[in-house]
Amino acid sequence: MTADWHIVPGGVTAPKGFRAAGITAGLKASGLPDLALVISDNTAIAAGVFTTSQVRAACVEYCRQQLTAKHNIRAILINSGQANAATGEAGWQDAVESAQALAQVLNIPAHAILLASTGVIGQRIKMDKLVAALPELAAAAEDDGGDQAARSIMTTDLVSKSIALQTTIDGRPVRIGGMAKGSGMIHPNMATLLAFITCDAAVSTTLWQQMLTRAADKSFNQVTVDGDTSTNDALIALANGESRTQAIIEPGADADQLEAMLTAVCQYLAKCIARDGEGATCLVEVQVHGTHTDAEARQIARTIVGSSLVKAAIFGRDPNWGRIAMAAGRADILFDQNSLRIELGDLVLMDYGQPLEFDRDAASNYLKTAAAGEYLHTDTVLIKVGVGDGSGFGLAWGCDLSYDYVKINAEYTT
Amino acid sequence: MTADWHIVPGGVTAPKGFRAAGITAGLKASGLPDLALVISDNTAIAAGVFTTSQVRAACVEYCRQQLTAKHNIRAILINSGQANAATGEAGWQDAVESAQALAQVLNIPAHAILLASTGVIGQRIKMDKLVAALPELAAAAEDDGGDQAARSIMTTDLVSKSIALQTTIDGRPVRIGGMAKGSGMIHPNMATLLAFITCDAAVSTTLWQQMLTRAADKSFNQVTVDGDTSTNDALIALANGESRTQAIIEPGADADQLEAMLTAVCQYLAKCIARDGEGATCLVEVQVHGTHTDAEARQIARTIVGSSLVKAAIFGRDPNWGRIAMAAGRADILFDQNSLRIELGDLVLMDYGQPLEFDRDAASNYLKTAAAGEYLHTDTVLIKVGVGDGSGFGLAWGCDLSYDYVKINAEYTT
Repeated sequence: MTADWHIVPGGVTAPKGFRAAGITAGLKASGLPDLALVISDNTAIAAGVFTTSQVRAACVEYCRQQLTAKHNIRAILINSGQANAATGEAGWQDAVESAQALAQVLNIPAHAILLASTGVIGQRIKMDKLVAALPELAAAAEDDGGDQAARSIMTTDLVSKSIALQTTIDGRPVRIGGMAKGSGMIHPNMATLLAFITCDAAVSTTLWQQMLTRAADKSFNQVTVDGDTSTNDALIALANGESRTQAIIEPGADADQLEAMLTAVCQYLAKCIARDGEGATCLVEVQVHGTHTDAEARQIARTIVGSSLVKAAIFGRDPNWGRIAMAAGRADILFDQNSLRIELGDLVLMDYGQPLEFDRDAASNYLKTAAAGEYLHTDTVLIKVGVGDGSGFGLAWGCDLSYDYVKINAEYTT
Repeated sequence: MTADWHIVPGGVTAPKGFRAAGITAGLKASGLPDLALVISDNTAIAAGVFTTSQVRAACVEYCRQQLTAKHNIRAILINSGQANAATGEAGWQDAVESAQALAQVLNIPAHAILLASTGVIGQRIKMDKLVAALPELAAAAEDDGGDQAARSIMTTDLVSKSIALQTTIDGRPVRIGGMAKGSGMIHPNMATLLAFITCDAAVSTTLWQQMLTRAADKSFNQVTVDGDTSTNDALIALANGESRTQAIIEPGADADQLEAMLTAVCQYLAKCIARDGEGATCLVEVQVHGTHTDAEARQIARTIVGSSLVKAAIFGRDPNWGRIAMAAGRADILFDQNSLRIELGDLVLMDYGQPLEFDRDAASNYLKTAAAGEYLHTDTVLIKVGVGDGSGFGLAWGCDLSYDYVKINAEYTT
């Protein structure tokens, strides 16, 4: 499928019928924005993908309950500063009360609200400050508030992450917007990946959840900064039908087009998160082909991009094919080692399972040049790995392993 | 079972009827010892556990073939310097010729020889030097050569790793010796874990393989330095019956006693490898209890000890319980988060899934003190994690993540 869409401004407020806000409620000691709201003017269907961890924040449990009950959704409330994870029954009550308080301010049912938190594990939300700030937050919600909302969900992310794409379905413009935060962790215990998607297409709840799950598997689930999974990871997607296109209720060309654009939004945000990983000096993309299934290719790609040895070699700008081969081999996917092929940029380092004579200076220079790209520039360290003749294909993204990663994660002392 | 054994000198040559040697054959540029031999005077049964990687060295494929054919074994030849992995058909021929050449020197069948290699991936063994050195190597094999052999299998290990234990079975002394090398990697691509066990008990091949597999699951498979798996990992155990005890051919008290001592030898060597991990400043032991099965507990323990965030926190001497909880949660083992309990040394940091008020200075001081232990001193950073009321228990070992890890793995440039 060709990418028949283009970027539009506005992030999560680019799709019709969505407003958003971000304000400083005083939850963070820094005084930076720490409370965000996304509102759909009319009810939206919602889909979600959440952390698979056994240790889950109250907000994650809350969202899972609401989505299981298939409630229509009007708003998402997101706080940064306190993760409200490992806070027990009291933390659960805080979540329930947050939703109730916002429901009163917005004059909507509490079950039409979803919640997300990011910040320090073990800390309860500063409820007095949060509740007191809700009227100001609601009043600030505007149809151009997407970028401000994106800034308010940051913890120690170095940049905010926001995107919107537009395509044409059924002769009418359809937009998907998204914002995310990643795993910058100057403070400890802040490793949360949060992402919020808005869409003005009309689509059935079942299809929308299926699309989101598949898109997550090709994007956020293929990002690794350090292999750790947060207690608060959440991806929530709303679709409100305000584009007034015909409802997409079964698979077909329109559904494919919508899913492709949803996947593109998710992959854009996923790459932003990898590039903004702790201590990262570059974005690394691994492409794997030749497996039986796409899932197998994704697993190998994820293993390579997550290997500490591969990551350290890239930080050292060392074209170390041996570590890439090693990581591919330990991905728990069967392949014939004599079919292994490894490319770095346009240079072939290994083929048919054996190292080739290649220009080491050119390879090292490729790493230096590619890694030196500006933020979100197309310059990315690209590793291509073939493992056979199958049609499976998969991508994964990560970053290098630098001194700063260790520094960020070791030198904070509680 | 109480540990009714004691340490004896001699490493792999402590058990009766074993000789060993280690010499400089010129395989390494450094001139350090690089060729080792372990000989059993009479035929021994052999068991093995090998890398699960899809990219396997020629020596691993060779050993798997010999062990599948259930050949009795007389000798193990180990070279350091070149890994003979990713070397294709030529590398396979080198392995076959190594065994044939040693067979001629020792006047034994080639199929009575096992092989192991460690060193740079993609490099073939310097066969002329290896073959020329075999007569000297064979002549040097003595019944006190265990320590010299242990030194000759090192690559960039900082210390050699060797142990022997003695117990009494059937009224007679029985010994198990072992040596290992770990994953010091100043050169790239040297991450191999090799371990060799000798035993003078008489035991059936089937039982011996079962014991070794279980012991590996409780020792070497519970060690992580950086989560990467080598192309050459091998654990080989010989038992030659020279202790003249009654043959252990079925499960029972004698088998249990032998397996317990085998497990102790493997765990000792596994801890040596973790403590000597690249850039490590301390050994970390994670104990998990309360799961349904031991395997579940081991998986959680392994996930915690392998978490980059936990490792970096320990390097920073930061009692960061949140990261331990996070890592436990993502281990793919179901448990009730409200039963999570975390102890650091004797301090309880979290209980019933919620953080406790604890003495942070004492906790940080515990980390500083425990981490400052001498090599293989009993001072070890100990993390205890409970996840419920089950009887499952598991251990894992690792090390912290330091600047030196990044330095060692990034600053070498090919």
